[in-house]
Amino acid sequence: MRSGFVAKVNAEGQKEQILNAAAALFIEKGFGGASMQEIAEALGVTRTAVYYYFKNKDEILTALVEEVTLRARRLSSQAVAEPDADPKERLRLLVHQHTMLILSHYNEFRVIHRTEQQLPERAYRANEEAKRAVLNNFTAAIEAGVSAGVFRVVDAKVTAFTLIGMCSWPAFWYKPEGASSAIEIADTIAELAVQSVVRPAKRQLKGSSAVSEALALLREDLDHLSLMIDKTPKAG
Amino acid sequence: MRSGFVAKVNAEGQKEQILNAAAALFIEKGFGGASMQEIAEALGVTRTAVYYYFKNKDEILTALVEEVTLRARRLSSQAVAEPDADPKERLRLLVHQHTMLILSHYNEFRVIHRTEQQLPERAYRANEEAKRAVLNNFTAAIEAGVSAGVFRVVDAKVTAFTLIGMCSWPAFWYKPEGASSAIEIADTIAELAVQSVVRPAKRQLKGSSAVSEALALLREDLDHLSLMIDKTPKAG
Repeated sequence: MRSGFVAKVNAEGQKEQILNAAAALFIEKGFGGASMQEIAEALGVTRTAVYYYFKNKDEILTALVEEVTLRARRLSSQAVAEPDADPKERLRLLVHQHTMLILSHYNEFRVIHRTEQQLPERAYRANEEAKRAVLNNFTAAIEAGVSAGVFRVVDAKVTAFTLIGMCSWPAFWYKPEGASSAIEIADTIAELAVQSVVRPAKRQLKGSSAVSEALALLREDLDHLSLMIDKTPKAG
Repeated sequence: MRSGFVAKVNAEGQKEQILNAAAALFIEKGFGGASMQEIAEALGVTRTAVYYYFKNKDEILTALVEEVTLRARRLSSQAVAEPDADPKERLRLLVHQHTMLILSHYNEFRVIHRTEQQLPERAYRANEEAKRAVLNNFTAAIEAGVSAGVFRVVDAKVTAFTLIGMCSWPAFWYKPEGASSAIEIADTIAELAVQSVVRPAKRQLKGSSAVSEALALLREDLDHLSLMIDKTPKAG
């Protein structure tokens, strides 16, 4: 990474490298404890190279917020904007992409989480607004599922906070070299989240179609029973 | 609170007040930014009164860890020690009591969470060990449920981390004056956690009793259908 830094033509790639190095240092030494000089040293470049992209540490912190929290806001808004989506699949998508975002930016997320009180004014407001938007998007997705009779009747706000907590917690334990890949972790968490709210199929009977739905379930059980009988070892 | 502080005979109560005031200040100003003097001022007492219980800020931080993390460890160990408990109810208890602990110590928990890297050596080790024990207890409770066929086959470690995240996240959003009480929040989260792993009853069929279980389900569906037909408004 050291020698490649200056040679790289991609400015976005260089900014990303600075943000990653800064995030790791802020975690290790705290935001107050790390200097621009140390960020440059961690990358093996001169301070001037860092100042080319960021005037000071506040700008780096603001960029971290924009990279993680604002992206979370955009992603969750897109997922909720699909009005015809199946409530289960929309929630799965919301949780999966939020978890993947955290997993691919876990250092950045930890820095934001731990320095929230010290964020520069503009970044603080952007972060608060983005968090509120993400919460509202999760809440809307849950309410839509409850209205459709697909989810249990839950406190949508407390549930939204809790699902966001499920997505966010990996920032505090994930190690890229660990036993599970990021995608495996996101798959597991998305399934846990969907199952936590979804109604068991049997309980989804309701309204005027209740009788025909009950009949459909009976047919399903009969199919299941036939299968079981076919599979049962014959006596003698 | 100010005038009552010195008069109170209960030393535990006074220590608890100091810990609460210190936690609130550490959140506001960071661990490095708050002084023993300010902690005393927040309580309206002299510095000597604070020093009577704690030699320095490090001792306060260590006491915070002992109050929250070690208690979490003890509680979760007790819940898992019941070998005959129903897996669902054991998990519900684990999640409920861990969430209640966080809700009743949310400031303390946030301080520990944010100053983990700066914890004094003894407190750091105690905190790491307690977190590992809590994780192991959650993992064991999940594995027991999977073995018993009551829980879905899940990655027990990732699931344990995720359920701990569900319990812990309220530290970052809970407000005592909010719409939901602590018990309501813990009830909601415990139910979400149990539902996230539990197998739907229909899927719990297995082994040699599959046919008789399928028949039992058929009977249940028939009962359900009878009920539906009784409730359907008669034509004419």
